[in-house]
Amino acid sequence: MTNYDAFLSRAAERMKESAIRKMGTVVASRRDVISFAPGYPAPETFAWREFAEIAAELFSGRDGSVLQYGPTRGHRPLLEQIAGILHARGIGSALEDLLVTTGSQQGLDLVARVLLDPGDVVLVELPTYTGAITAFRNVQAEMVGVRQEADGIDLDALDETCQRLRREGRRVKFLYVVPNFQNPTGLLIGREKRRRLLDWSATRDVLLVEDDPYREIYFEDSATEADVRPIKAEDEDGRVVYLSSFSKTIAPGYRVAWMAAPPPLAVKFEMAKQAEDLLTGSFDQRVIYEACRRGILERQLPMLRRYYQEKRDAMEAALKDALGDLVTWPAPKGGFFLWTTMPAQLDAEAMIPRAVEHGVVYVAGEAFFVNAPQQNTLRLSFSAPSAERIREGVARLASTIRAELDSLSARAEGPSRAAR
Amino acid sequence: MTNYDAFLSRAAERMKESAIRKMGTVVASRRDVISFAPGYPAPETFAWREFAEIAAELFSGRDGSVLQYGPTRGHRPLLEQIAGILHARGIGSALEDLLVTTGSQQGLDLVARVLLDPGDVVLVELPTYTGAITAFRNVQAEMVGVRQEADGIDLDALDETCQRLRREGRRVKFLYVVPNFQNPTGLLIGREKRRRLLDWSATRDVLLVEDDPYREIYFEDSATEADVRPIKAEDEDGRVVYLSSFSKTIAPGYRVAWMAAPPPLAVKFEMAKQAEDLLTGSFDQRVIYEACRRGILERQLPMLRRYYQEKRDAMEAALKDALGDLVTWPAPKGGFFLWTTMPAQLDAEAMIPRAVEHGVVYVAGEAFFVNAPQQNTLRLSFSAPSAERIREGVARLASTIRAELDSLSARAEGPSRAAR
Repeated sequence: MTNYDAFLSRAAERMKESAIRKMGTVVASRRDVISFAPGYPAPETFAWREFAEIAAELFSGRDGSVLQYGPTRGHRPLLEQIAGILHARGIGSALEDLLVTTGSQQGLDLVARVLLDPGDVVLVELPTYTGAITAFRNVQAEMVGVRQEADGIDLDALDETCQRLRREGRRVKFLYVVPNFQNPTGLLIGREKRRRLLDWSATRDVLLVEDDPYREIYFEDSATEADVRPIKAEDEDGRVVYLSSFSKTIAPGYRVAWMAAPPPLAVKFEMAKQAEDLLTGSFDQRVIYEACRRGILERQLPMLRRYYQEKRDAMEAALKDALGDLVTWPAPKGGFFLWTTMPAQLDAEAMIPRAVEHGVVYVAGEAFFVNAPQQNTLRLSFSAPSAERIREGVARLASTIRAELDSLSARAEGPSRAAR
Repeated sequence: MTNYDAFLSRAAERMKESAIRKMGTVVASRRDVISFAPGYPAPETFAWREFAEIAAELFSGRDGSVLQYGPTRGHRPLLEQIAGILHARGIGSALEDLLVTTGSQQGLDLVARVLLDPGDVVLVELPTYTGAITAFRNVQAEMVGVRQEADGIDLDALDETCQRLRREGRRVKFLYVVPNFQNPTGLLIGREKRRRLLDWSATRDVLLVEDDPYREIYFEDSATEADVRPIKAEDEDGRVVYLSSFSKTIAPGYRVAWMAAPPPLAVKFEMAKQAEDLLTGSFDQRVIYEACRRGILERQLPMLRRYYQEKRDAMEAALKDALGDLVTWPAPKGGFFLWTTMPAQLDAEAMIPRAVEHGVVYVAGEAFFVNAPQQNTLRLSFSAPSAERIREGVARLASTIRAELDSLSARAEGPSRAAR
């Protein structure tokens, strides 16, 4: 028999299965489970008819490059469209700054490979996106979390943490932030704080990795375009690596996202991508390009903002109704997620089997912490299920939580009753 | 100014641009250059009409999962088709062995990340595929090349090299081989040698990474299906990680390939892929699945074998005609490449500017060597250009080589003439 353990790299020994992906497997294996777990966009919002038209033209065979290998940086006309999108967000960019990535997950992985050696420190928001945690852990970096306030990361705590780590001789390479409707908390970093974060990064000579997949999905009752202006828009010093994606606005199945970075870094990201997958799918890139060029993306956005706002409304109403006495959450002003805190004695991870029994799943908050985990938190995604399924799912979650509380108090009372 | 060098990982410091990709840029920047550089399949062989039909059905919107996130392992029905393809190649596989990858390049990268620590040794054929070199170098592994004979890697040299490295205290993790129509040499490992390679890997306790993108493109005048039987087919001990792809038979723009590996390794490859890109494109996977299910792939193969055989014939005839006195090559029995050795005084890399001037490009052989480079070699790809362009390109190459020889002998004569 071959002993495979002897062949694994140190990175592979430490690899773990993603909590979100694991939930996907749970859902796939049970019927009629309502899933609040993955941050899936709603397929009924996708521009199916337009995609069919675009595909019919692309598959005419007139242009062989539609299905051919192509440049690692990306399809040139798409890169030009991306430069236009960035311009509209306040970010000036040249083609040499830009790289198409196979989803933003690849962007995070490229950041990890190009910027991190084993033992290097990444500062992250507490809690933060699991996909980033996985990418940074896979290069054996260490992550240190900084608590968040209502308007995002706590700057005093951030600076203290950074300085303490440096005094301990650690290399702090960058701060990873999701300023708009953060995954998992839904928080928005305040406008003033964005400016101060950028100043801080220059003072302390760290880079900022700004991950911005949700910015177009702001809810017009509580946020404006000015609120979601990227930190990168003010980045005159070249401190910010900016990631964004078409997954939440066009469709994730195409795997098309992008990075904007200072050219000396962009060229390294490109080399790292050459080794990872040579190029992002040629057909996918052309569909996205056509969706931009024909104004399909532009037309989708106002619809998506209303659509997901209604989903959020449905979930907040259902939570107030069914669980208002037991759970709290910061009201999301955009994005896909609602971050829920339950009574302190509950453990969201331990509660999963009971939730599945009741026909509902979520992601236990623990997966989003790199330190100081709060076991009584969970992430609920309202993006994919219908309003009706949201209401039903929250009712099931309420039954789950109440049953769990009953069972805990019964266990607590158990011994004393036995002593009687 | 930000000093980016201070932020780079050790891996990033060592990253280089791919020689093949660089040639792509040269071609893009000049008009009417005939390129023998990249191993592009010919777009006129793609099943455009069938892709259009498949896309029309997939984009009906009836099945939202066509454009949604999906399992990291891959689309289940596609995995089942892949198991069927492997069965036809003599390889028994269960779903737990299989993983869809974003091109075989990702498979190589996952192998690197899961199996290699900095300083670990990978044994490779000399010369070998540059994409593998890049992936292994990016995790700071060391590659040691073993010379090839007419029927593939020299087993005595392989064993000597492995034993020498171990005596020096090095960790030799695996041998990377491309047994069928190797990139760049076009060589085919003999049947008996495959069996002996597998035995050797067990004796020396190393793994084999078998990269098999070209096996379906065997030329019926000189090879049979029995000749391209994978090493993995006899792998009872679980020594072989097998990679293959739809890029050369369906189209590379879809970025769909796969790995078959012992389950304890497959689960680690899956985790590494989660961090790299979450999943391979959902639409792409469905197109490939439909192309398998509807028998399109099966119908393509005999046509592709004839088609690329004719291209090889065109290139061999043109070379004999224009350069028969100056260059040699092993006759390719399949695949996309012809490996050419020029007179010893020529340097293929240094000759590139002259070649571009003459309107032809290739990949200088140097890029495929990890040690003991042969500067007078070049890789010519006959897959993409038409027979007519092949003849014209070889004529240009002949002019290039003769001009380069003239210029070298003029320089050699120069001083003596000046002395007269």
